[in-house]
Amino acid sequence: MGMTMVEKILAAHAGKDKVRPGELVNAKLDLVLGNDVTTPVAVKEFKKIGIQNVFDKDRIAIVPDHFVPNKDINSAEQVKMIREFAEEKEITNFFELGEMGIEHCLLPEKGLVVPGDIVIGADSHTCTYGALGALATGIGSTDMAAGMATGEAWFKVPETIKFVYKGELQEWVSGKDLILYTIGDIGVDGALYKAMEFTGPVIDNLSMDNRFTMSNMAIEAGGKCGLIEADEITLEYVKDRAQREWTVYKSDEDAEYAQVIEYDVTNIEPQVAFPHLPENTRGISEVGDIKIDQSVIGSCTNGRIEDLRVAAEILKGKKKAKHVRLIIFPGTQEIYKQAMKEGLIEIFIDAGAAVSTPTCGPCLGGHMGILAKGERAIATTNRNFVGRMGHPESEVYLSNPAIAAASAIAGKIVSPKEVL
Amino acid sequence: MGMTMVEKILAAHAGKDKVRPGELVNAKLDLVLGNDVTTPVAVKEFKKIGIQNVFDKDRIAIVPDHFVPNKDINSAEQVKMIREFAEEKEITNFFELGEMGIEHCLLPEKGLVVPGDIVIGADSHTCTYGALGALATGIGSTDMAAGMATGEAWFKVPETIKFVYKGELQEWVSGKDLILYTIGDIGVDGALYKAMEFTGPVIDNLSMDNRFTMSNMAIEAGGKCGLIEADEITLEYVKDRAQREWTVYKSDEDAEYAQVIEYDVTNIEPQVAFPHLPENTRGISEVGDIKIDQSVIGSCTNGRIEDLRVAAEILKGKKKAKHVRLIIFPGTQEIYKQAMKEGLIEIFIDAGAAVSTPTCGPCLGGHMGILAKGERAIATTNRNFVGRMGHPESEVYLSNPAIAAASAIAGKIVSPKEVL
Repeated sequence: MGMTMVEKILAAHAGKDKVRPGELVNAKLDLVLGNDVTTPVAVKEFKKIGIQNVFDKDRIAIVPDHFVPNKDINSAEQVKMIREFAEEKEITNFFELGEMGIEHCLLPEKGLVVPGDIVIGADSHTCTYGALGALATGIGSTDMAAGMATGEAWFKVPETIKFVYKGELQEWVSGKDLILYTIGDIGVDGALYKAMEFTGPVIDNLSMDNRFTMSNMAIEAGGKCGLIEADEITLEYVKDRAQREWTVYKSDEDAEYAQVIEYDVTNIEPQVAFPHLPENTRGISEVGDIKIDQSVIGSCTNGRIEDLRVAAEILKGKKKAKHVRLIIFPGTQEIYKQAMKEGLIEIFIDAGAAVSTPTCGPCLGGHMGILAKGERAIATTNRNFVGRMGHPESEVYLSNPAIAAASAIAGKIVSPKEVL
Repeated sequence: MGMTMVEKILAAHAGKDKVRPGELVNAKLDLVLGNDVTTPVAVKEFKKIGIQNVFDKDRIAIVPDHFVPNKDINSAEQVKMIREFAEEKEITNFFELGEMGIEHCLLPEKGLVVPGDIVIGADSHTCTYGALGALATGIGSTDMAAGMATGEAWFKVPETIKFVYKGELQEWVSGKDLILYTIGDIGVDGALYKAMEFTGPVIDNLSMDNRFTMSNMAIEAGGKCGLIEADEITLEYVKDRAQREWTVYKSDEDAEYAQVIEYDVTNIEPQVAFPHLPENTRGISEVGDIKIDQSVIGSCTNGRIEDLRVAAEILKGKKKAKHVRLIIFPGTQEIYKQAMKEGLIEIFIDAGAAVSTPTCGPCLGGHMGILAKGERAIATTNRNFVGRMGHPESEVYLSNPAIAAASAIAGKIVSPKEVL
């Protein structure tokens, strides 16, 4: 019997010919990631271990992105602490404000993650890099500390669920809608500690940006990771960026899956996840009359250039509704610059958007667009838990950038068809 | 004996032929201003007054700019409260996020302040509009409430100090340096409750943006206001923007001044105000070796297009020092767009700057760039009081945009000459 992609990656990094789901393996890490929320805790744990150096100063990435530009004195102190740690340990990939971006947009862009990698990151959306055919998964700060010290981590080999997407993508349906639909179907624990493998002709034709969006939300179904086989589209993205050699792992035809789930995407319309779980999805035609106070376009889920292009296509020459705050934040400085060159930022400002420097900001209720009691946002982000974007009595609806842009114009959640 | 400009403006608005310093007058207001920090208090006070309507729904400006995009739940609640007030009272000039800017950059740009006006604003830097030949002054939230209710306010007619600037402006010396030099000379209480009148051939040739910077900091010398006679440069700025008729008031030749102070600007070099008062000024050649952690370019003092042009001139093709955070925030959306069109934003991002949507942000230690303990910033803002930009043990040095840009490159406070 053959192996799935995730089994092959784990076997290769554990120095084994074969691994099976459920087996515990100690695997070498290609990259260890932390941000300004999780790294301070990891640094404290690292100091307890009592060793002087990190395992490899080029294989650690520290990205202050959640509360930067520093929101308050506490966040300033946190970033200061990890900056000093990075300087002391001579960590190559510490990304200072202005050189940074949202971690999960930034690392692939900088070529710090390549196909076949194992990456652990002290952030739940580390699974984003699965789109590159890498095993990438979120861990806690203590695991980050151990990873920085040893360059290794223990994994229980996950079972794999194979998702097969067939049919024709409809207008305004994107990777975001596929993953929301999937989560809506299997539930927020539908892939608990399992590898999700996204396959089929629809995925084969999906752009990298849309693939990143899908893998990014694997954790919202409980997935350990969300993988897509590296193909020509992947390698086209990787080849001029990669800072290391890569290996493409493909699932064997006779690999064993816990489950195989097929979707005909022809029947999938743009999705909206209602409060307070990403699984509460409805097709846009079934949303009803939901007035919004804020529209947020960006984040590690949908802050890439294609996302901004879609938003601009809808916002061009139009104005947001008077009562709506429209906040758009590109994922990285490179994306920001590209959007500027293409005239997208001007379109956004003309539409009445506040365009922010890259930051996680409002997505996690950090800063840069927090909701008051009773307020409602549509957002291209990944979570709509209670109080996620502010007051416990506020609400977040998740969608793709087209819906979020159209809704900003209409002042309520609508399809782009309603405003174009 | 004739009258000074401020006396004439007060007399006209009090329905009198003549007023004298020390006299108490009740004057009609042309505009009442509040922001997201001060308006909530004013709204509560307004409700206590017990009347239904504001005096004139077109003569009140409410600009949420200090903690927007909403920094946290509290700030979201504050903005929500004033938004609802503005809707209920049908206040024309409520500026929603994305349509706004820093109040003191925004109101002149929108033509809401014109020469000869009396403007009270619940923000100390309301004095900025003195650059238009208007009597503009900061007041408290209760005065704002009374102003919104009655359209009138009591003033004690201030004495006037006349400042005369002569000579040749040296390279990299701007309005910011003139006002810093002036405050350094007379002290932070040197013009206490007096009108400052900026005159002389240097002012006659100064651009509007530089004039706004000077008037903006009148309050830092304790001034009630800081006026510049409207001239051709003023009217060129005003004519396509003004939403109302204006009146140009000029001080009589035989007007009585409390003091006349002359400066030969030929001897003034770029100024840096050391912690923790704006009066602690030194010429750039006397600064010594001051390493910085952050450089902030923007604010109601220096966030206008000319300020950004100067910064870009120095940053073009260069990189900020690795350890420095460089934060640049245009004063308004219009300035942001103009800077983008001129390629300035691209220069900033290439230099490693975080470019923010318009907000007061770091200037007042609000958000978007707060300092940790022991950190040091150079800033084009207006105040360097203890803890102004973050931790009580952080430090702020004030300068013009050229010095702030050069210092970001050098990693310490330097003249542009050191990096060009």
